[in-house]
Amino acid sequence: MEVRTILLSKSVFEDNDRAADELRAALRRKGTVLVNVMSSPGAGKTTLLVALIRRLAKSRRIGVMEADIDSDVDAVTVAKETGCPCVQLHTGGMCHLDAGMTGQGLRELGDGFDLIFLENVGNLVCPAEYDTGATFSMVILSVPEGTDKPLKYPLVFQKCDLVVISKTDALPYFDFDLEECRRNVGERNGGACVIPVSAKTGENMDALENWFIKKLTEV
Amino acid sequence: MEVRTILLSKSVFEDNDRAADELRAALRRKGTVLVNVMSSPGAGKTTLLVALIRRLAKSRRIGVMEADIDSDVDAVTVAKETGCPCVQLHTGGMCHLDAGMTGQGLRELGDGFDLIFLENVGNLVCPAEYDTGATFSMVILSVPEGTDKPLKYPLVFQKCDLVVISKTDALPYFDFDLEECRRNVGERNGGACVIPVSAKTGENMDALENWFIKKLTEV
Repeated sequence: MEVRTILLSKSVFEDNDRAADELRAALRRKGTVLVNVMSSPGAGKTTLLVALIRRLAKSRRIGVMEADIDSDVDAVTVAKETGCPCVQLHTGGMCHLDAGMTGQGLRELGDGFDLIFLENVGNLVCPAEYDTGATFSMVILSVPEGTDKPLKYPLVFQKCDLVVISKTDALPYFDFDLEECRRNVGERNGGACVIPVSAKTGENMDALENWFIKKLTEV
Repeated sequence: MEVRTILLSKSVFEDNDRAADELRAALRRKGTVLVNVMSSPGAGKTTLLVALIRRLAKSRRIGVMEADIDSDVDAVTVAKETGCPCVQLHTGGMCHLDAGMTGQGLRELGDGFDLIFLENVGNLVCPAEYDTGATFSMVILSVPEGTDKPLKYPLVFQKCDLVVISKTDALPYFDFDLEECRRNVGERNGGACVIPVSAKTGENMDALENWFIKKLTEV
């Protein structure tokens, strides 16, 4: 599957929050759920998304937007591994996506999706400051990163609906206490759901898939 | 050891590059080397710095500045584990440090150091865009993050003098090819030195210590 790459232009919207609300409303009218996926570089966003999309694509129409500063590697991987339409967004050095940039990607991707994943730039700081217009947000925190990230990067954990703890297959090799991590997430955001998974072994991927299926019926 | 925490104010300098050059010259006059340490969240910056400082502090006067958006956990850890003077810098939500902010930290830390480590905000994007005034920069890339980071976050790898590949004790559990990583770093920056280490097992920490000792005699 061919992957288009778009170099995003700087947003023209003065008021990003208003642009984000308009985008969200437009998506709702189309019956499309947009998920903003945020994490550190190397938390395994792409691997997790491939594993999740393969499951969800059996019953839903899935689209993907991969934001990156420069390379195309993620979009090519996701398109090849899932067969789903995938657009690569180049931010031209910018450290985050806003609603205007997300809108540019959505126009390229086109209509007819139940669920669109927006893989934001790998960064736990800046993406949290900009509403992309997504229906909801998820953070992926990988076991090797440690349990203290919700304390050190508060905003991204405050603003998300779902925290996926990835690479749980690495738990035996790292000093990572799942319950402590849940407590740290809870300190920032009592409403966030926490789901530990391993995309490598498939552990708990059923729970993650079910969370999305349920969410799609609610919206 | 008591740890002071400073909430940084926004820099007043219009021209960050000039402010950085002035800071660098002032440090040179004092015989102090300042190292800007950058990485993703969770790459093991603090653990590595503790292990490295314990070695270097036997023969050199070491100071530490720990930048974080909110928490104090790193500064307290470093001060306790190394006994070196340590200042916590709170960026108040900002995703990077610039020369003005670094200067505020240096004034708090005081004089009389051979080597000062500046642990920048955990972020592979924004810190690379701002010259802090450091004598040189190092990037820590951990094995669980994967070998493709130099391709995806080019600027930070272009701008550094040293790439430390951390958590090599995790190599048996991850699909991480050291030679491929070296090639990817080399594509961005042929002049950067690459040193793989494990702070946990001590593997190759001698090489890292020697790199610093040599650098300190050169400056």
